[in-house]
Amino acid sequence: MHNLISDYLGEILDDVRDHVDGEIPTYITSLTKADPDWLGIAMCTTSGRVYEAGDAEVLFTIQSVSKPFIYALALQECGLERVLDVAGMEPSGEAFNELSLREEDKRPLNPMINAGAIAVNQLINGEDSSVEDRVDVIFDFLSKLAGRELEMDEESAVDELEKADRNLSIAHMLRSHDVIVDAAHDAVDSYTRQCSALVTVRDLAVMSGTLANGGVQPVTGEKLLDPEVCRQTLSVMSSCGMYDAAGRWMARVGIPAKSGVSGGLIGMLPGQLGIATLSPRLDPAGNSVRGVDVFEDLSTDMGLHLMSTEHRTGSHAVRSVDRSGEDTIITLQGVVTFTAAEEILHKLNSLDFVSERVVLDVSRVIDSHSMGRRMLKEQLQRIREAGYDIAVVDPDAELRGRQLSDGSQIPLAEDL
Amino acid sequence: MHNLISDYLGEILDDVRDHVDGEIPTYITSLTKADPDWLGIAMCTTSGRVYEAGDAEVLFTIQSVSKPFIYALALQECGLERVLDVAGMEPSGEAFNELSLREEDKRPLNPMINAGAIAVNQLINGEDSSVEDRVDVIFDFLSKLAGRELEMDEESAVDELEKADRNLSIAHMLRSHDVIVDAAHDAVDSYTRQCSALVTVRDLAVMSGTLANGGVQPVTGEKLLDPEVCRQTLSVMSSCGMYDAAGRWMARVGIPAKSGVSGGLIGMLPGQLGIATLSPRLDPAGNSVRGVDVFEDLSTDMGLHLMSTEHRTGSHAVRSVDRSGEDTIITLQGVVTFTAAEEILHKLNSLDFVSERVVLDVSRVIDSHSMGRRMLKEQLQRIREAGYDIAVVDPDAELRGRQLSDGSQIPLAEDL
Amino acid sequence: MHNLISDYLGEILDDVRDHVDGEIPTYITSLTKADPDWLGIAMCTTSGRVYEAGDAEVLFTIQSVSKPFIYALALQECGLERVLDVAGMEPSGEAFNELSLREEDKRPLNPMINAGAIAVNQLINGEDSSVEDRVDVIFDFLSKLAGRELEMDEESAVDELEKADRNLSIAHMLRSHDVIVDAAHDAVDSYTRQCSALVTVRDLAVMSGTLANGGVQPVTGEKLLDPEVCRQTLSVMSSCGMYDAAGRWMARVGIPAKSGVSGGLIGMLPGQLGIATLSPRLDPAGNSVRGVDVFEDLSTDMGLHLMSTEHRTGSHAVRSVDRSGEDTIITLQGVVTFTAAEEILHKLNSLDFVSERVVLDVSRVIDSHSMGRRMLKEQLQRIREAGYDIAVVDPDAELRGRQLSDGSQIPLAEDL
Amino acid sequence: MHNLISDYLGEILDDVRDHVDGEIPTYITSLTKADPDWLGIAMCTTSGRVYEAGDAEVLFTIQSVSKPFIYALALQECGLERVLDVAGMEPSGEAFNELSLREEDKRPLNPMINAGAIAVNQLINGEDSSVEDRVDVIFDFLSKLAGRELEMDEESAVDELEKADRNLSIAHMLRSHDVIVDAAHDAVDSYTRQCSALVTVRDLAVMSGTLANGGVQPVTGEKLLDPEVCRQTLSVMSSCGMYDAAGRWMARVGIPAKSGVSGGLIGMLPGQLGIATLSPRLDPAGNSVRGVDVFEDLSTDMGLHLMSTEHRTGSHAVRSVDRSGEDTIITLQGVVTFTAAEEILHKLNSLDFVSERVVLDVSRVIDSHSMGRRMLKEQLQRIREAGYDIAVVDPDAELRGRQLSDGSQIPLAEDL
Repeated sequence: MHNLISDYLGEILDDVRDHVDGEIPTYITSLTKADPDWLGIAMCTTSGRVYEAGDAEVLFTIQSVSKPFIYALALQECGLERVLDVAGMEPSGEAFNELSLREEDKRPLNPMINAGAIAVNQLINGEDSSVEDRVDVIFDFLSKLAGRELEMDEESAVDELEKADRNLSIAHMLRSHDVIVDAAHDAVDSYTRQCSALVTVRDLAVMSGTLANGGVQPVTGEKLLDPEVCRQTLSVMSSCGMYDAAGRWMARVGIPAKSGVSGGLIGMLPGQLGIATLSPRLDPAGNSVRGVDVFEDLSTDMGLHLMSTEHRTGSHAVRSVDRSGEDTIITLQGVVTFTAAEEILHKLNSLDFVSERVVLDVSRVIDSHSMGRRMLKEQLQRIREAGYDIAVVDPDAELRGRQLSDGSQIPLAEDL
Repeated sequence: MHNLISDYLGEILDDVRDHVDGEIPTYITSLTKADPDWLGIAMCTTSGRVYEAGDAEVLFTIQSVSKPFIYALALQECGLERVLDVAGMEPSGEAFNELSLREEDKRPLNPMINAGAIAVNQLINGEDSSVEDRVDVIFDFLSKLAGRELEMDEESAVDELEKADRNLSIAHMLRSHDVIVDAAHDAVDSYTRQCSALVTVRDLAVMSGTLANGGVQPVTGEKLLDPEVCRQTLSVMSSCGMYDAAGRWMARVGIPAKSGVSGGLIGMLPGQLGIATLSPRLDPAGNSVRGVDVFEDLSTDMGLHLMSTEHRTGSHAVRSVDRSGEDTIITLQGVVTFTAAEEILHKLNSLDFVSERVVLDVSRVIDSHSMGRRMLKEQLQRIREAGYDIAVVDPDAELRGRQLSDGSQIPLAEDL
Repeated sequence: MHNLISDYLGEILDDVRDHVDGEIPTYITSLTKADPDWLGIAMCTTSGRVYEAGDAEVLFTIQSVSKPFIYALALQECGLERVLDVAGMEPSGEAFNELSLREEDKRPLNPMINAGAIAVNQLINGEDSSVEDRVDVIFDFLSKLAGRELEMDEESAVDELEKADRNLSIAHMLRSHDVIVDAAHDAVDSYTRQCSALVTVRDLAVMSGTLANGGVQPVTGEKLLDPEVCRQTLSVMSSCGMYDAAGRWMARVGIPAKSGVSGGLIGMLPGQLGIATLSPRLDPAGNSVRGVDVFEDLSTDMGLHLMSTEHRTGSHAVRSVDRSGEDTIITLQGVVTFTAAEEILHKLNSLDFVSERVVLDVSRVIDSHSMGRRMLKEQLQRIREAGYDIAVVDPDAELRGRQLSDGSQIPLAEDL
Repeated sequence: MHNLISDYLGEILDDVRDHVDGEIPTYITSLTKADPDWLGIAMCTTSGRVYEAGDAEVLFTIQSVSKPFIYALALQECGLERVLDVAGMEPSGEAFNELSLREEDKRPLNPMINAGAIAVNQLINGEDSSVEDRVDVIFDFLSKLAGRELEMDEESAVDELEKADRNLSIAHMLRSHDVIVDAAHDAVDSYTRQCSALVTVRDLAVMSGTLANGGVQPVTGEKLLDPEVCRQTLSVMSSCGMYDAAGRWMARVGIPAKSGVSGGLIGMLPGQLGIATLSPRLDPAGNSVRGVDVFEDLSTDMGLHLMSTEHRTGSHAVRSVDRSGEDTIITLQGVVTFTAAEEILHKLNSLDFVSERVVLDVSRVIDSHSMGRRMLKEQLQRIREAGYDIAVVDPDAELRGRQLSDGSQIPLAEDL
């Protein structure tokens, strides 16, 4: 059976294929080598399943799509505070200011614009790093995200550096405000090479899937980033990622996203998916014309809009309630978030236990949030205080320890 | 057993209780009657369960917290296009512009600032409506959202109207640009009365829960708004709701929110929760000091940040796969979103059917998205094309019709 | 003999007569009654001679051309410091801000924009003044400036007040920032009546001539304003008077100017001329199309550009040096400015006095600046210290006292 | 006798000597070598007389004070249109924009800010010029302005170039918008050398005097610039010259001016004076603290404010009216501007000629404007048409030809 999801992705590509508006930018020679008709998409679930359609294996330079990934790397290496020293997290709005520096402290408004991305690049491997070492660290990280060794388009890097007046202007300005310490040329060199990583939309989907998956590469299972880093990165993408006005993108598409000048576009649904498209023709704002179309389709047709009220979780956290001898066995499933825990507690409160023991079976729980675990344990303690025995079935130690707040332990229901 | 969730909410209040920074604004007399120590919280799940702690029953004027609700009402009454005619959806950033009108067309930047809210208020009940009729419609709607008859603080309405120079300035400017047609005084009168609805945090939690629930009041079950209206409203709140800079709020809290000058603050998690707090002391930006604290706690401790990668859905969409005679019965559960459907299809593709018939049991599915249903049906069709009989268990017509794309019907597995 | 200057003015009108671009604004009914072909000019020297051509006797409402005059009146009544409290003196540039209030203190940027003019209007006759009394004071002042009783176009005042949403918006905003204390409606009423004074270009030329003449009405000889007030008013006009960008107007025309929506345009050359034109069709910036043309012609062809390096003064301050018996008689003429005094001193220093007495004849000096007088006296003292007798011919006490810095008196040369 | 003007200048220096606020900038090494107590002034009349006081012979780098001179050179070399291609003429206001480029076309707002000055520097000697040749042309011009060979502070040039991140940022941005074609480094090198010319305040006073004198170096008499170029330069200085807000400087001082980071400050009174001061301590806006004080004194005490209504010209244009036989001889003097001509015509019109011939003696006229000459000739023609003989005494051909508009010639009064 041919894969249905890939078929759907292919259908979406077909829907937008005839939208040939937009232009390939001509100021970078390597970009002009792109086939304007390229059209590809890939999607990677947090479970590590990848679907693709169209030109999913075409190699192109990553360009600005690298920004969120290197931002995440800087957050992981240096921590949020240090990164906020060199780049804020506010949308730049209509770019009234050529350099998009904050009035008050001359820091770039956010890491998704060039000024911020150049400043963030300089944090990688320490400010004293050589360009070579820094670029090595960056490529090593990008390669781990993609799950394969990424190469640099050397010709593109050289070409862009030669035409980098705007970025050199930015780098000199950043230096004049002590945001970066490296020579302007070196800073731009380093950033330009970051932008020259050769990727496919399949790569980008997996890389995005890693961010959506809290930092664990969903295919290789390698832990690359902390969940907090991913959350911060997705947050900044949601307000600053698209050259489009922030509010409009959030309303119309509702997926944190980032586009690049080579026609790439990525998006993430936290906990669910990474998505990437390729279509080289850009609109005047610099976003891929058909890439934007595809994301609008994905948002509307597939219900991927983050503000969609149909994204209910919980609602089936209690898989079953069974009576077995002296036990009432409550079997949970899914992810125990706060919302799921609330539902579980509601269910437990509504039960009229007639048994002697209440057993919570969490063996089907696939993940849990600390607040969710805390709530379950607290509720068990209350059940015990109400006079029942309690126990858990927890073969994978999902509860991360069975100690209650009164110091006692929840026994394992080893007899089940 | 005392309710654990309410206890947690109480703990969060205790955590912030000593944070007595901020001031009660003095320019509106009625606000100065507030007790600065008021501190309350309420939470309403999309299942209609309400939890509260602290001063949850104190009545206060709704003020700017009314904005998202009346925006939703206008969207419901007039449609998105008409509403966009009078208010955009971009963050106003640091309010460089007293009036926050867009340069290009002199429309308010968004409906969460006064200019936009006054313009949106004027859409309700038609531009020709009398102030009385318009206010009646508004109060009727707010009352339905709250599930009880809301009253107006007449004294506050009169007092604010007398000191409404800023709003009158805005209204005259809106008139001069033909955004509104009513007399400036009447427009401000109407808006001021909207702001004078008396509510509790319990009311606000239920009202917010309605938006989070796709427009169905979760306690009364009354359908008040379309899901698209709720999505649009939450989207605009996520980028424009807090006087705080949009990007920072999204990164630190990650919950679409709206604050008001009387100390109220609401937030929604789409599909999950409505939340409301009350604490009258405001920070210089005009947000409730302890309200912001509480939301940061909720976001961090309870894992309610929208960009949290721990919000996994799907993952347990297939409740069970059972062999029963000639049937393989696949029982689904939860909400069939795209992500859930992807998981289901993956499961189905990985199964090696040895039975003659494949039965999809959707009786435990609590909701489904159109794309999810489409994917299920398409997959069933492919299974049939692969040589199997197919059937569904769908007592509640969750699949909204059983016709496949080839025109045939999926039979009901009536024998099960 | 027909007057040559008037003929020249007529020629300039003929040069621009065919330039029929621009539109009469339609938002004020009274303006639409204007004949778009009206074209008039008048010029008034500081000696009180008036020249005119074209439609110099047509009555029209003064509108924004009243702003510099009422600004001067406020300066005269309240002093610079008080006036700066309510309006700055910076150009508003491209009006990015609907209200053109300063970021830092919410004061109008300058008195030549509506916000500033409304605020300045409120200073006249004290903030507690009734509208009637304030308007009376204003009309009394404008009438003295014009040298005839000016009337109000009552119909226009009423009409404009009805359509004054923009000005009402401004007035409410000014009230909200405590710039004005009067009710917004009254403030706009007062300002609108100021704008409704009926004038001819002849009136405006004489009124402008008064400002150019240091505050002495050049025809009636009445002293209405202090020279410092006129200097301040002309300065502000030079940077803020034209809706056109400040720098461009200064470079192309170089005459402090102010235009009005009814097609009036005034300009002043300090110490020399007041000029006024009427042509109702406006360019998109709101300036009279042919009025601007005329001023460009006046600037270029007549050499009236303030930055023209051909404006040499001094150069003939010493009328003659005569030997008469034991006297060397130095006869001065013209205005003894610093520059003229420098020339005089240079001449005196270069003379080789062989006489016993040096007599300075200032009877032909028509005016003198304090620094010029100080320099003359100091130089005389030095001449006496060098061993010569000194004396002056000063029948009109042009030297304002004959005391020297050493306490002695310069004797009058009564024998001459 | 000691020179009185110099004494006055010395007194003004003494008045401000104790004002030791401000700081010497430390980012350029050569600037830190300045003695903070340096205080000097020089003044040069358009007649070529130079007065000075204090540290008038101290050498310092010209820095931004070079901007108006090189702007004038570019205007002279390329014409206004070409220069406007690379730099506008609007004040930059409070520098909200790091680069002060116009939104619409990314051109620098004016030539008095670094972006504009760098762009204008690139015009000199053609865009293809080598840096060496361009700098040679610039130094040759500056030397002619000063009347002596100026030298470059090579050490300063090298030092500034090393720390030129801000200017390099600007140059790269200008290149990215095709405002300049040279390599960014070369452009900044060229501009930095321009800024490193070593001058005294005496030099600057003479150089400024040249601009005030319509382009003729007042000491050497060499014609270096056209009057239109000087007018344009002074106009732009009047609105954009001081880092201070344009309107405030115009109101308080009223003298077109330009300051530099090394503590220099120049000003011009068109047709009258060039002025220069030196005092190295700068206010936060970057202007010399005591330099600004001195200019305020000069403006107030010496009456040099351009908007001063005491600057009357004309008023004594008719030196005498004499009857001699059949002749009425009208002797003119001074500069025949439009205003002077108006006065002359008024006088002529008021005379009741009883003679047969009217003779206009222009031998004492020191200069005349084309409009003034045209008016005199036209008036003579009318006198002849009224039946009188006419003749002129014009030994220096001040009238530039004696042909009248009817084709006839005015005879010379050779018999006088």
